[in-house]
Amino acid sequence: MGQCPSEFDLIERYFSLGVPSKWPSQGIGDDCAIISIGTSKIAVTTDTLAIGTHFLPDADPFTVGYKALAVNLSDLAAAAAVPRAFFLALSLDKADEAWIERFTAGLKKCAQQYGCALLGGDTTRTSFIGQERAPVTMTITAMGDVQEGLTRKGAKPGDDIWVSGTLGDAYAALMLRTGEWEGTCTQHLADRMDVPTPRVELGQFLQDYATACADVSDGFLQDLGHILKRSAVGAVVNVDACAASVDLRALGQQRCRQAQMAGGDDYELVWTAPVAARKAIEAFAKQIGITVSCVGTILSDTHLNLVDATGATVLNVYHGFDHFDQ
Amino acid sequence: MGQCPSEFDLIERYFSLGVPSKWPSQGIGDDCAIISIGTSKIAVTTDTLAIGTHFLPDADPFTVGYKALAVNLSDLAAAAAVPRAFFLALSLDKADEAWIERFTAGLKKCAQQYGCALLGGDTTRTSFIGQERAPVTMTITAMGDVQEGLTRKGAKPGDDIWVSGTLGDAYAALMLRTGEWEGTCTQHLADRMDVPTPRVELGQFLQDYATACADVSDGFLQDLGHILKRSAVGAVVNVDACAASVDLRALGQQRCRQAQMAGGDDYELVWTAPVAARKAIEAFAKQIGITVSCVGTILSDTHLNLVDATGATVLNVYHGFDHFDQ
Repeated sequence: MGQCPSEFDLIERYFSLGVPSKWPSQGIGDDCAIISIGTSKIAVTTDTLAIGTHFLPDADPFTVGYKALAVNLSDLAAAAAVPRAFFLALSLDKADEAWIERFTAGLKKCAQQYGCALLGGDTTRTSFIGQERAPVTMTITAMGDVQEGLTRKGAKPGDDIWVSGTLGDAYAALMLRTGEWEGTCTQHLADRMDVPTPRVELGQFLQDYATACADVSDGFLQDLGHILKRSAVGAVVNVDACAASVDLRALGQQRCRQAQMAGGDDYELVWTAPVAARKAIEAFAKQIGITVSCVGTILSDTHLNLVDATGATVLNVYHGFDHFDQ
Repeated sequence: MGQCPSEFDLIERYFSLGVPSKWPSQGIGDDCAIISIGTSKIAVTTDTLAIGTHFLPDADPFTVGYKALAVNLSDLAAAAAVPRAFFLALSLDKADEAWIERFTAGLKKCAQQYGCALLGGDTTRTSFIGQERAPVTMTITAMGDVQEGLTRKGAKPGDDIWVSGTLGDAYAALMLRTGEWEGTCTQHLADRMDVPTPRVELGQFLQDYATACADVSDGFLQDLGHILKRSAVGAVVNVDACAASVDLRALGQQRCRQAQMAGGDDYELVWTAPVAARKAIEAFAKQIGITVSCVGTILSDTHLNLVDATGATVLNVYHGFDHFDQ
């Protein structure tokens, strides 16, 4: 969820004054809906992915299956949820058993890794355009248990802004593979694009420390922007403070900044937390072997200011992904 | 769910030996998954619909929105669930505000009618084929509360086979609108195709009476077949015993049988129940103002036998819809 907030806002607007739910829940606009059912709370997210849009046309079906579930688990991670179950709606252009077998193997690997069971689904064929069928699309709805759950709302002035992992790798892989950037796509960058690592363990840890959380899918600044908007705060961000992989740094500062600030497809977490939580966050990251970077501070005004390591202002030329802004 | 059991079987086969769920649940193959979360039980279903496949290319977006939710509520009805929440993954070919406004109005009407709240979603654009984008598709995942829930398993030899409403109307509308059949599509038939009535109240009532239940989406005999297979029983069905609308009967016995036995798109319920439940079922149907028909009997062998009103055998030439059998 949250891939296209501006378009979903449209649905929400026309849908407004709508139907009250007998299951208490938080509204549309977060990575997950958090719903109370009886004495339990669950997080639910839904995401559609299409070959040719979210995957290159010749993507290995194993990585397609893996990533289709991983991006949904990333939404669950942002809500501090423990993944439990998912549903798959698959539209196929043809009944290609070899493709389905590899796709399902990738899906299963991710499901096993994170303990998320396939509990149902629907299979259809894609629509015709003239004589040809549209490429494969898949919608996954994933669910998990939460205690309270994290949302994009709750960031407070003075909070640190944190991000996990080395942002920008997946975007660099896409640029290199499509020839937009000159150079060779390394295995590391390719893997970061094809087999993202949803930060499920980190998300659950953050339940007790973060004030707000989102996953980085549309680009860091855009996803941070969702937190700022929902929390009615601003921020100052150091555009060079996020850990970068060796392979990304090798592409130069300009591309590195572009990929990290606006690239998207990272499936890392961005969160805010009080300064007092620094030690606990760093200790946990070390314990589970992942990199975390403190990249900025929440401000009380609602502006987003970018600076470099010297504190000098950097112009915000970094725009994330919007499906309808093309 | 359950639109394409044969293809989903394929997924299930490759996925087998899979991931055990920490949420106890019934497996793939029913209209809904029934999941225990804490002390609560919920039913979950997911269905994809596409313009040009499930809807005529020029379908009124209001009826598209209404029906997209209604078909999912029909799956919930078959599980005896009380609809509570749904998630919408919408793929649009263009950002057409007028279309979205009417689509959302239809969706909202159905949501209000059945008390099912929109709690989240995702909006993307459809894939390109050459220079053109594929038509609009939508995947809805709907959820509701259940006591125990009904499934396709549990039909017992000697049980009556029941069906709600006047089957065949939607199929007749499709055949007349596309010119496959000569004649004019009446408003009644058109409405039955465009604005189906999920049998939510009936489904909940059946919790205490039915031994197995499914919704009629792929064609009556095919959906009854799912019950027979899952329950490991057979049946004898009177092909002329189901109530038929005046408009359908006007098209002649052969078309009426074809539409009722194999047409699909009805979103009625088919269920089995002990003979002792007859009076209660008929009284409830009368109370809520719907037609129900007792159309056959469950047998202990696993054959499906068709007969006419005189008891003479009728050849089974009625085949339902399979997305990959084209």
